[in-house]
Amino acid sequence: MTRERSIGDTILQWAEELANHTETPGMMTRTYLTEAHRGAAGQIARWMSEAGMNVRTDQAGNVIGRYEASNQATTGARALLTGSHFDTVPNGGKFDGNLGVLLPIACIAEWNRRQKRFPFAIDVIGFAEEEGVRFKATLLGSRAIAGTFDLAVLDKRDEHGVAMREAMGAAGLSFPRLAEAAYRPQDVAAFVEVHIEQGPVLLDAGLPVGVVTAISGASRFMVTVHGLSGHAGTVPMGLRRDAAMAAAEIGLYIESRCAGIPGLVGTVGRLEVVRGAANVVPGEALFSIDIRAETDEVRRAAVQDVLAFMDVVAARRKVRLDVVPTHEARSVPCAPWLQQRLADAAASLGLEARRLPSGAGHDAMAIAAITDVAMLFVRCGNGGISHHPSETMTAEDAETAARVFSRFVENFADAPTLK
Amino acid sequence: MTRERSIGDTILQWAEELANHTETPGMMTRTYLTEAHRGAAGQIARWMSEAGMNVRTDQAGNVIGRYEASNQATTGARALLTGSHFDTVPNGGKFDGNLGVLLPIACIAEWNRRQKRFPFAIDVIGFAEEEGVRFKATLLGSRAIAGTFDLAVLDKRDEHGVAMREAMGAAGLSFPRLAEAAYRPQDVAAFVEVHIEQGPVLLDAGLPVGVVTAISGASRFMVTVHGLSGHAGTVPMGLRRDAAMAAAEIGLYIESRCAGIPGLVGTVGRLEVVRGAANVVPGEALFSIDIRAETDEVRRAAVQDVLAFMDVVAARRKVRLDVVPTHEARSVPCAPWLQQRLADAAASLGLEARRLPSGAGHDAMAIAAITDVAMLFVRCGNGGISHHPSETMTAEDAETAARVFSRFVENFADAPTLK
Repeated sequence: MTRERSIGDTILQWAEELANHTETPGMMTRTYLTEAHRGAAGQIARWMSEAGMNVRTDQAGNVIGRYEASNQATTGARALLTGSHFDTVPNGGKFDGNLGVLLPIACIAEWNRRQKRFPFAIDVIGFAEEEGVRFKATLLGSRAIAGTFDLAVLDKRDEHGVAMREAMGAAGLSFPRLAEAAYRPQDVAAFVEVHIEQGPVLLDAGLPVGVVTAISGASRFMVTVHGLSGHAGTVPMGLRRDAAMAAAEIGLYIESRCAGIPGLVGTVGRLEVVRGAANVVPGEALFSIDIRAETDEVRRAAVQDVLAFMDVVAARRKVRLDVVPTHEARSVPCAPWLQQRLADAAASLGLEARRLPSGAGHDAMAIAAITDVAMLFVRCGNGGISHHPSETMTAEDAETAARVFSRFVENFADAPTLK
Repeated sequence: MTRERSIGDTILQWAEELANHTETPGMMTRTYLTEAHRGAAGQIARWMSEAGMNVRTDQAGNVIGRYEASNQATTGARALLTGSHFDTVPNGGKFDGNLGVLLPIACIAEWNRRQKRFPFAIDVIGFAEEEGVRFKATLLGSRAIAGTFDLAVLDKRDEHGVAMREAMGAAGLSFPRLAEAAYRPQDVAAFVEVHIEQGPVLLDAGLPVGVVTAISGASRFMVTVHGLSGHAGTVPMGLRRDAAMAAAEIGLYIESRCAGIPGLVGTVGRLEVVRGAANVVPGEALFSIDIRAETDEVRRAAVQDVLAFMDVVAARRKVRLDVVPTHEARSVPCAPWLQQRLADAAASLGLEARRLPSGAGHDAMAIAAITDVAMLFVRCGNGGISHHPSETMTAEDAETAARVFSRFVENFADAPTLK
């Protein structure tokens, strides 16, 4: 692959250009079906078209570019799907999602320049919605593709009171035709998603890419601790029922229970004394629990231990706990044969591809309903920060990821799912 | 002491009547120099007068009733001072402060009925301000009496922008003459303050009264923890710098360090993750520290250990701590000879008088600048709650406290400070 400008440079330049399609100048904010979102969709479609792809938009707003198979290919052969989302969180990063759209387009542009086709079509999908910001429902684009779109969410309203069905109508989308967006499983050979890691594992290991083993399942709870408030000076330690210290003890247990077990993480992201004051023993506190693991067995065991420990703390400290489950999602494993092909592609380029779970959710979770999925993670700079303006990636890493992805595609002709 | 209605009943009825002088009907809210406050002062003055006392008001708004000594007393003899404050916190209790004004008046009314005088005068002082609610400066009444009133607070403004000097002028008080309110030490034999405990110690011990050993000193800090925020799913436990868990660990250390040491208490009354979200590893947290002890040595040792532990946690967890001292007050010991006289008075009535420190501040702290002080605590119902509408006390306990106080006064004639 010789060229004046590297694919890595192209990807980074495109990411900068795409970031101009934002709701708030100076920030990267692009939520479902806004003007900025439609602008980005148009730009992606132009780049796809210039890369030699046939471009269409479905009724969910997904932008789909097809790089057709070589003429020798059997009519009706399965297509390799790739892509990621082009919506963002408010004031987010330029690479989250967008990278997984731009990188395959850049690779295909290169093949197109060399007039290289494969015995299978490649569909690059720019998923219109993944983050769930505007309508508090996630993975809308990939669920439409997978045929699992929940029509009830059409009634959800954004913060201005606009229902999703109204926003779709205004954007020229026909929600009665949403079902047409769904792919038939028999038309798909696999789905592979390239994504910035959004964490520090590859950075810490000094590796540019990694192969995802599974998208972790998650259990979330909100807990309210009811103790007894009192005067900080007049209630002796032995007579206290301190809600905050109960929460602290549970938080530290979660931390230690999850430490040292690969793929398991536990987080108390919210923790606050209700109506706290320096001179008052906390009578009420609330905190969140978020436990994720590569496998459901590991996650459920951790949740069970945490809930049991909470009962012990409540009894010993004479506090009452209201525990509300707020979220439960199973682990979505990446297909071992696809993981191996990604690892082989990396190895053939002399790279070690670390296997790691994804603690964050991704479009691949939804697409797993119709085909085997895999994910290639790319190193995230700045300590692994994402969903933040300082999310960053080097052109070298984008280049390396493009080489691994290209090798994976170039070796895909003998994939078992192509028959 | 035979009478149709007990002193305890009188005290409770007066407390109910005085509670009608409130800024907010249905709540007990009476802050410095408001209409409700002046109404309460007038009512207290009437009860004092009816009890046979000569009543005056000083330039701080304190209401002072003198029960003159018997004719046999030496001119210029020292007076026994007693009293407490008649301001309240917003939506506070009926007994906090007020009890220490009403109880001595009720006792004196009884002596006056029996035409009993002592060889010393008794001054009952209704301190106009202790809580610091309106002008964010505490102990204003007792500081005026002690001659330690800080004139700089005259410039403080309430939430409506009214300066204290303006409020004093409107209430007919002359701040240039504030110094006249001060007692000369040579005119005072002692100060004894009766107060509801505002805690659960006597309730837990099944005792109606207790003798205060000291008003605890206090050290307060606000701490901000700077860690590193991250995605709750993607940052492995070993790579986290979780600000909330650092705060939790420090909080639990404070709790365990203070447990089991009599008179020492440590509280994290505020604790919150800044911009916390369930799916974000906390990057910033803040919490308060409040450490109080009967003796300054015990308090300082605890503070030193806590600060040292915080350094250890910060280093191990790679977080940065901003520690701001917000308050520091030394312990004010109650005079051992006065404690003994209160205990003896209780014992002569067949009562055990538990010795206990006061973790809350009281007017006696300020009066200690001019004379030996002591405090008699009265059992607080409802789990020891105070600064709250459900603060409560039984007529029996008020009666018992009045008997102990009376016996103390009746035995005071041979006090060493009377010469």
